[in-house]
Amino acid sequence: MLRGGPSSTGGDNKGPFLAPDVAVVGAGPVGLAIAWRCAARGLRVVVHDPAPGSGAAYVAAGMLAPVAEAYFGEHELTALLTASAARWPAFAAELADASGADLGYRADGTLLVGLTADDLAEARRLWAYQQGLGLPVAALRPSELREREPALAPRVRGGALAATDHQVDPRRLVPALRTAAERAGVTLVAGAVRSLSDVAADVTVVAAGCGAAALTGLPVRPVKGQVLRLRAPGGAAPGFRHVIRGYADGEHVYLVPRADGEVVVGATVEERTDTTVSAGAVLRLLRAAVDLVPELSEYDLVETLAGLRPGTPDNAPILGPLPGRPDVLAAAGHHRHGIVLTPITADLITDLIVTGEPGPLLAPFTPDRFGPGTPGAPGAAGGRVSGGTTTKEERWN
Amino acid sequence: MLRGGPSSTGGDNKGPFLAPDVAVVGAGPVGLAIAWRCAARGLRVVVHDPAPGSGAAYVAAGMLAPVAEAYFGEHELTALLTASAARWPAFAAELADASGADLGYRADGTLLVGLTADDLAEARRLWAYQQGLGLPVAALRPSELREREPALAPRVRGGALAATDHQVDPRRLVPALRTAAERAGVTLVAGAVRSLSDVAADVTVVAAGCGAAALTGLPVRPVKGQVLRLRAPGGAAPGFRHVIRGYADGEHVYLVPRADGEVVVGATVEERTDTTVSAGAVLRLLRAAVDLVPELSEYDLVETLAGLRPGTPDNAPILGPLPGRPDVLAAAGHHRHGIVLTPITADLITDLIVTGEPGPLLAPFTPDRFGPGTPGAPGAAGGRVSGGTTTKEERWN
Repeated sequence: MLRGGPSSTGGDNKGPFLAPDVAVVGAGPVGLAIAWRCAARGLRVVVHDPAPGSGAAYVAAGMLAPVAEAYFGEHELTALLTASAARWPAFAAELADASGADLGYRADGTLLVGLTADDLAEARRLWAYQQGLGLPVAALRPSELREREPALAPRVRGGALAATDHQVDPRRLVPALRTAAERAGVTLVAGAVRSLSDVAADVTVVAAGCGAAALTGLPVRPVKGQVLRLRAPGGAAPGFRHVIRGYADGEHVYLVPRADGEVVVGATVEERTDTTVSAGAVLRLLRAAVDLVPELSEYDLVETLAGLRPGTPDNAPILGPLPGRPDVLAAAGHHRHGIVLTPITADLITDLIVTGEPGPLLAPFTPDRFGPGTPGAPGAAGGRVSGGTTTKEERWN
Repeated sequence: MLRGGPSSTGGDNKGPFLAPDVAVVGAGPVGLAIAWRCAARGLRVVVHDPAPGSGAAYVAAGMLAPVAEAYFGEHELTALLTASAARWPAFAAELADASGADLGYRADGTLLVGLTADDLAEARRLWAYQQGLGLPVAALRPSELREREPALAPRVRGGALAATDHQVDPRRLVPALRTAAERAGVTLVAGAVRSLSDVAADVTVVAAGCGAAALTGLPVRPVKGQVLRLRAPGGAAPGFRHVIRGYADGEHVYLVPRADGEVVVGATVEERTDTTVSAGAVLRLLRAAVDLVPELSEYDLVETLAGLRPGTPDNAPILGPLPGRPDVLAAAGHHRHGIVLTPITADLITDLIVTGEPGPLLAPFTPDRFGPGTPGAPGAAGGRVSGGTTTKEERWN
């Protein structure tokens, strides 16, 4: 087991009143999944959070979309997203079994669309990049697009299918993870952690989203996102089953239909730290949504909400020991990708805790990548984390 | 005093435990104002409402706009609106004094605008009608329009000023009326009235909005309206001071700025009985609002809400005794005009109760105008209501 930090107690056979093996700060999906996995490996785990599940996950749409999210210049992140998405079906099945909950996991795939000729040109540029990485993006003829999703507006010029981009409902996921974690023996403490010195455990995992910055000094910043929730009238299911992502007159929008009638429409990406909902953002999201799927005009608007994503300088998560603090592991900065990255984050961090050795997938994401200025021991190499790289197979699987 | 109904007790000097002189069903602005006025005349008044102020007034914008609301073919209604608006300044002053509350009364006037050439043509047709009635609508040159309200979009093609169309905040008005009424001795009973036989009083006033239909059988139907509330960012006042009403690409919209930073954006008019907020309505209202006043895009969207106006077959209120029931007075069906009509409704109904004689202004609005099918005693002429007409002076004053 990974040990050696200042708060280590050094004992392997502790009684029930001693410090836990692992303290997790943050009961979002990442923190809860780590706690669940660690408890399943026999560790005693405490999770600290004043309001479990109230962070970015409460706002998130829950797209599991490594293909649609594969963006120019983010090869290593795309590899991690792809590897984590591949773990989602088994993870979802195991979690549903452990919790008895329906996660709203849905494998209907994602349609990528462009409303105008300009929108389609922009989309095609990205699809070509994604196809160049070997990712499964299949261009559709307009007739194929409409056959798959008749609810699309006749104006929509063209599209493609990312069949392996699925979805889950984060508002079902978090309670399920909590149930599974508690059934595995995890203790939840409803309180805020103001400083790492408040936590007594052999290993502390900081999975506090935007709160990680204050606790660790890591470069995690809030990135505001505004999201709408619509509902099909009369308790019906939405009139479309794919996640639809696209450009509509230059506005990027996604539409995530749930079996229970909900449709999540998102999202803005704003370098702001407030969580107010602005008239302009709602207008742009609704206009793009209705332009792509006209029947949404008749849906109820049941929620407008803004949340703060934990962004990082390179849009990738920060995973692994703080420089000079091998007993403190970051699992933060998941930005737009917290839900899809939950399974792999939990597996990699749990493996690191149990074996003391970081898996090769972690290498591009360790805290020390931000250079000697990274907080902790300046210039420290970051504990036992080696410089391994991911293989091609791991990346695009 | 008007008496003679089945529930009349016939006594003028009743002790405190006897039936009240007047029972008012409904604690919206109309019911509360009637109760306040009656109590001020020495009558003992009880108001029944399970949730005071939660009806149409809670959603309403509070425009006092007889000029802007003057519409083809509604001469008699326009006369009543005009007469009531003329009473508003004194009514507001008296109410502010009696309650100690700020009503948000504002006399900055209303700008009537058209976004496109088509919108302006449509607007001008209505302004010509209003000017033909002698109402104060003054066309403005584009430069005059922008000088008055620099926040208007450069695209706005033209406008006019209705200087006498003012506003009040209904969410301040209702608590103020309640305070004034209670200070005048009115008793509020928090309970629903299911049948007029549940109420024991010499005179019963049905001021129950949409609820009047079930109590009286009068043709009052719900007319759905969806409304948004925005708020200027950072606690600032809105960047415009006039009420702005206009057409924007064929969509009719109003923008009501409050001193406290709120801007009410409304409203749909839908023949529906639900109170869900629809994505399409919010989209249309926001688009029209931002097209007319672009800075609204940066405002917070703090509330989306739908309410039900108490509509009638001729869009005018129903005021006066039920046919064959001189002891039951309707003060209902105020449709889009409940706030502006509050002072005159209270005065006319109170005068009728105290004197037993209906004022001439009531004549066009009595329940028996809907013909022999009107509930109560079929074919009854409607108590002591005479057929007097309004004078020209009363109309356009």
